[in-house]
Amino acid sequence: MQVTVTGAGGFIGKRLVRRLLERGIASPDGKAQAVTKVVACDLALAGLPNDPRIQRVEADTSSPEVVARIVTPVTGAVFHLAAIVSVGAEEDFELGMRVNFDATRALLDACRRSAPGAKFVFASSVAVYGGELPAVVEDGTPPAPQTSYGTQKAIGELLINDYSRRGFVDGRALRLPTIVVRPGRPNKAASTFASSIIRDPLEGREVACPVPAETAMCLLSPRKVVEAFVRAAEIPAGEWGWTRVAQLPGLTLTVRQMLDALREVAGENVVKRVRFEPDERIMRIVATWPTAFRSAKGQRLGFTADGSMQEIIRAFIQDELSGKFVA
Amino acid sequence: MQVTVTGAGGFIGKRLVRRLLERGIASPDGKAQAVTKVVACDLALAGLPNDPRIQRVEADTSSPEVVARIVTPVTGAVFHLAAIVSVGAEEDFELGMRVNFDATRALLDACRRSAPGAKFVFASSVAVYGGELPAVVEDGTPPAPQTSYGTQKAIGELLINDYSRRGFVDGRALRLPTIVVRPGRPNKAASTFASSIIRDPLEGREVACPVPAETAMCLLSPRKVVEAFVRAAEIPAGEWGWTRVAQLPGLTLTVRQMLDALREVAGENVVKRVRFEPDERIMRIVATWPTAFRSAKGQRLGFTADGSMQEIIRAFIQDELSGKFVA
Repeated sequence: MQVTVTGAGGFIGKRLVRRLLERGIASPDGKAQAVTKVVACDLALAGLPNDPRIQRVEADTSSPEVVARIVTPVTGAVFHLAAIVSVGAEEDFELGMRVNFDATRALLDACRRSAPGAKFVFASSVAVYGGELPAVVEDGTPPAPQTSYGTQKAIGELLINDYSRRGFVDGRALRLPTIVVRPGRPNKAASTFASSIIRDPLEGREVACPVPAETAMCLLSPRKVVEAFVRAAEIPAGEWGWTRVAQLPGLTLTVRQMLDALREVAGENVVKRVRFEPDERIMRIVATWPTAFRSAKGQRLGFTADGSMQEIIRAFIQDELSGKFVA
Repeated sequence: MQVTVTGAGGFIGKRLVRRLLERGIASPDGKAQAVTKVVACDLALAGLPNDPRIQRVEADTSSPEVVARIVTPVTGAVFHLAAIVSVGAEEDFELGMRVNFDATRALLDACRRSAPGAKFVFASSVAVYGGELPAVVEDGTPPAPQTSYGTQKAIGELLINDYSRRGFVDGRALRLPTIVVRPGRPNKAASTFASSIIRDPLEGREVACPVPAETAMCLLSPRKVVEAFVRAAEIPAGEWGWTRVAQLPGLTLTVRQMLDALREVAGENVVKRVRFEPDERIMRIVATWPTAFRSAKGQRLGFTADGSMQEIIRAFIQDELSGKFVA
């Protein structure tokens, strides 16, 4: 099967490309179907493995010409991960609309015209929720985004449902919790600190945490989210029910609990590198997100959370720091 | 104040234009503000009064050039009623996206660029609901549209919320029940029969009802919906809460109850002109719509339903048939 991955240069995209080539995508009868080619698209694609099955398209997914190149009649599945994240889409409204909305629509239309019925796996977000929220968000909680990013993701979900209902694509949208631990530099997500406060001290750097220790978030590891993307493509269409959207389960933890886990794994010296420096803008955005989820549908479809924050931190040290941290 | 009305050639648009010129729009302090000019836009504008305050733009609202002409720095409010209705948007997906979605976005962007903060009143629909619905839809019921029309309306609502949050417009979206009784010819709404089964027999014509007598629908009269559009523009921004969307209350009645009311108002001879001829496609679409609503928010904002079906039918005879029907 030929597969397209947008945002393939991102840290999740890169892992997903490797995983798809390694594992293939199982068909509903359980047999693995090999992925023979991955069209990997992103503005920059450094760090992808040197594999002849990868076709590199270093370009802007929000350009119609690029979309026409990366979706063709042989495309069997599209994993659409490219996005302008929360703070980015607040700062530049037009850029957010172009990348988060227009590109999603262009990819869906390219499937409709060139590869009708292709699997379409979309990275949505818990940022679709907001407003007056219950303590625990369930499948029936209505989206009410309070950021442009969340709005654009909610619109993407609606399009995927309608395009799937009409048979234009076979869509699946996953609402992602905050993914930790991101390697590398902070990005423009309001949630980026959740990674920074683990990554930076493990790499020996001091770091400012922009929210109070009591702030709770719902977390999922890169390993689990990549597993979820592949699984989303494998679940038969008939199991999705009325909507092609599922909430991924995560671990709900406060910043304090995250730092306690860091202490357990890496010691007090590492945790001491984190200082609290409240940032009103970040606090305001994070406050609109729900912190706890109970998704009967996500569970029924077989998505799972990580076992513990300690597990997440150990996996980060293993996968991204070659097993070593600055004690 | 200068006001733009799209869909101004439609039967609700025409009434709204007249009403706005007659009555003005009250400001939050209760004082009526005169509407000095209405930019009336539609493909055809026959039947609008001969009034120098009306600027006629007979053109396609989904064309960017037209949008630039009808929204200018002096625009104080936009009433966006133009739409491709349910069956139309199912039959021609691209036309539905262009008119229901692209034109809405273009109008919002024109306000953002030329008339930031303008009131933006949007005709949404109960077609945003669908899937597994409770017996009574409440404010917290999540939209899950099962038609392209409903999808496009739900996307319009999300855009209006985000554009309002950012101060680009001062938006208000009303979820309209089925409007009865439409004058003239049937349109491409799956719900058009709800008007036809009253209008046609009153005008002496036989008519086929495509759904069984037990089919329930939520109904609102043209008088009430025009009142609601004006009211929506008058309610202060601060009273809308987390979303700029409100469900309009309506009367929930079965086709049988509608025909009983017709009998009471116009007699058995008139009702005899209705025959039942099930149409699977219409039944399937209508079955996805909720039939009963309880909107605490709609009530709090002061929107009201009609008193009875008899009242609705009598108002139709008075407003559209000059007080006479074929007995």
